[in-house]
Amino acid sequence: MKFCSECGNGIVVEVPKGDNRPRHVCPSCQTIHYHNPRIVAGTLPTYQGRILLCRRAIEPRQGYWTLPAGFMELGESVAEAAARETWEEAEARVNMGPLYTVINIPYIGQVHIFYLADIRDGEYGAGLESLESRLFAPEEIPWEALAFRSVKLTLEKYLDDRKLGVNALQSTEMTLEIPPEWKPSDSKSAPLDHLKTPS
Amino acid sequence: MKFCSECGNGIVVEVPKGDNRPRHVCPSCQTIHYHNPRIVAGTLPTYQGRILLCRRAIEPRQGYWTLPAGFMELGESVAEAAARETWEEAEARVNMGPLYTVINIPYIGQVHIFYLADIRDGEYGAGLESLESRLFAPEEIPWEALAFRSVKLTLEKYLDDRKLGVNALQSTEMTLEIPPEWKPSDSKSAPLDHLKTPS
Repeated sequence: MKFCSECGNGIVVEVPKGDNRPRHVCPSCQTIHYHNPRIVAGTLPTYQGRILLCRRAIEPRQGYWTLPAGFMELGESVAEAAARETWEEAEARVNMGPLYTVINIPYIGQVHIFYLADIRDGEYGAGLESLESRLFAPEEIPWEALAFRSVKLTLEKYLDDRKLGVNALQSTEMTLEIPPEWKPSDSKSAPLDHLKTPS
Repeated sequence: MKFCSECGNGIVVEVPKGDNRPRHVCPSCQTIHYHNPRIVAGTLPTYQGRILLCRRAIEPRQGYWTLPAGFMELGESVAEAAARETWEEAEARVNMGPLYTVINIPYIGQVHIFYLADIRDGEYGAGLESLESRLFAPEEIPWEALAFRSVKLTLEKYLDDRKLGVNALQSTEMTLEIPPEWKPSDSKSAPLDHLKTPS
């Protein structure tokens, strides 16, 4: 942030009175510009025991497989955002299940929230941001071609839980550390936390 | 938003190519400025069966009682934000329990997330944003002087669950509708969803 979005004046970085951390502050109109973490909402959609994944048509991680997910918008609930993304990316109508994983990614200022979901009629497709969608049996999951760490962790937990039975499908929260290969410059080109490209 | 925070040029509102909703777009440097919901993180801190509430020293809802909570910052997890706010507002060190309520407030673009928490040593105080803090037995909760709907709903659920026993303390998600007395202008002066002031 270089300019005030309210008055167009140049911005300074300083700790406002009564605050305890540096903010973007406008010395002209005094507006304090806060920047907060964003929510990425998605689902783990299943149909007759198989899991729906989409192959990404866009960067970051074009060509890699993901659970349908995207940035929560103003005016919707987290679950509504997850259902909307599932429709937009995988053209699947789902019955939303419980909140399942909350994955903090502090170094890129994101919280990924995934819900369990049942595909209503077994139908799915490829939205504008997907090359294709496909139902995978557990043993078919393309582990080496997954797009994001949060997707991998959510799938791993789900398959582990499922082995223990339906009652083991409890929600959990985790926090991701910075991966060794990550560079701050990635955060601009890659708005989602991505896995290292397999060599 | 009136000016581009990257280049200072005037902003237009339009649907960017490949998008499906209006955004703030800079016609000069082409930056698309997204605005997303914010997370308010807090705790329901208990000690020997009593619940810790803080009386607000600041607007909105100055003088009213609340659970310690505030906007999640960049660089922290949701649980870290909740623990930090509990320290800043109530000067209580807590052992964090499970995620408990997720309360969507779409009409002000917020998601309130509360955790159960145990106060470590029974000590608490009043941070800069609080006039005082106090432990309340369930029958002492000041229902008519609570600051926010999300606080009231979280307390109601907790007391209901507790009557059913420890195993009933399951997390839940809810979405708040616009209250009849709410005006869009409130969203600027009141960054948190507030209860109607009792008459």
